[in-house]
Amino acid sequence: MPNIQPYTVVDSTVRFGVYCVVWHFTSIGFAVEIGDNVCIGSHVYIGNFSNIGDETRIQTGVFLPNHSKVGQRVFIGPNATCTDDKHPRVGQPYEPQPPIIEDDVSIGAGAIILPGVTLHKGCVVGAGAVVTHDVWENSTVVGNPAYEIHGEREYKNKWNRKQNTI
Amino acid sequence: MPNIQPYTVVDSTVRFGVYCVVWHFTSIGFAVEIGDNVCIGSHVYIGNFSNIGDETRIQTGVFLPNHSKVGQRVFIGPNATCTDDKHPRVGQPYEPQPPIIEDDVSIGAGAIILPGVTLHKGCVVGAGAVVTHDVWENSTVVGNPAYEIHGEREYKNKWNRKQNTI
Amino acid sequence: MPNIQPYTVVDSTVRFGVYCVVWHFTSIGFAVEIGDNVCIGSHVYIGNFSNIGDETRIQTGVFLPNHSKVGQRVFIGPNATCTDDKHPRVGQPYEPQPPIIEDDVSIGAGAIILPGVTLHKGCVVGAGAVVTHDVWENSTVVGNPAYEIHGEREYKNKWNRKQNTI
Repeated sequence: MPNIQPYTVVDSTVRFGVYCVVWHFTSIGFAVEIGDNVCIGSHVYIGNFSNIGDETRIQTGVFLPNHSKVGQRVFIGPNATCTDDKHPRVGQPYEPQPPIIEDDVSIGAGAIILPGVTLHKGCVVGAGAVVTHDVWENSTVVGNPAYEIHGEREYKNKWNRKQNTI
Repeated sequence: MPNIQPYTVVDSTVRFGVYCVVWHFTSIGFAVEIGDNVCIGSHVYIGNFSNIGDETRIQTGVFLPNHSKVGQRVFIGPNATCTDDKHPRVGQPYEPQPPIIEDDVSIGAGAIILPGVTLHKGCVVGAGAVVTHDVWENSTVVGNPAYEIHGEREYKNKWNRKQNTI
Repeated sequence: MPNIQPYTVVDSTVRFGVYCVVWHFTSIGFAVEIGDNVCIGSHVYIGNFSNIGDETRIQTGVFLPNHSKVGQRVFIGPNATCTDDKHPRVGQPYEPQPPIIEDDVSIGAGAIILPGVTLHKGCVVGAGAVVTHDVWENSTVVGNPAYEIHGEREYKNKWNRKQNTI
């Protein structure tokens, strides 16, 4: 049984692996699947149909939209925000583009991941980065808009082209 | 009657239109007026005396200070923050400058709106933008500090002058 | 007795001075010491063993990691985030580097303080700033990464060198 603290809203359809913890004031939506040894901090929101891999740690205040895919051993820092709506307008239909976060990724505090972005295996997103494009394996991005500071040359060039954050 | 989920703190003086929803862990202050078909996400804080127009959607983790004016069909993305105190210092008096957010505005995830800013009708604030000046009708701003990427030329020039975020 | 609102999680070991207030949906950890006249907003997380000085105001949605040191008359704006783990990786040991925030500091909304940073007496951190280095007494920093806009010349030069946010 997961260790679910008081004042949490965990849908009855959520499936947990072993040794999970959910801290206070956290909301986990419909049909979310959570692996083993996952730690979910306080004030977190996890949207419907999301997947969270084994040993992942989601810190206080994180927002994950519906259908988020989060791999194993991922760290998501406090108040980081993922998004799925590229052009939000009230009353208009939209095609959700939830984030794909692969294994061993680390996301710094307060980072913002734009819709449709894939964070590839082992990459690092600096605190406060606003990530507008996919991030390559094992590379590191920082800034608003985010740019690569460690990684492969070719990809770096692509990143260094002028980018808009929307 | 609004659909108010458990674990919410909605002051008894709040007035709702029809078909409103308030999600968990949200706090709505004194004398707030809320229109029809408004959806307020979880972990939201809405300060006293605020107005929220019809069909507006306020996502998870948004902070709105006292006396915020929010129009109709406004989208405020997750973890966006509005402010009203230009030079916060403990123990010093201050003149609150709450935000004015006109109809059909969209604010991206994690954006920060500095005190006294007006977001004019239909404008778009990109995710993670730090908005230090008014944003013109139907224009789009991104970055920290925010600058205009789509909009009228004259205004763009004004924006492109060096800006400080404080 | 502190004024602790409903739906809060305050560890029984927390010590309060006189005239404190804790708003809804806030979590305060083990052995935290809080001075007199402290106001802690809603949706706040204060980690274990932290110290909060007299008359400090912590706004909605703030995250403070374990062992945070916060002085007197400090203002921490809504959704500001402090951190203590320079290179977060799941399963790897880390040496926590909690923030040191001296007296009379003001931190703007949504600012992010990187691990090990000291905010010296009376300094100001602009809204949305991502602070990667110590901030000198009475100076002001803004931007991502943060740079100094008011302060002593020598320090300013040091700040203006290219900085990475990680």
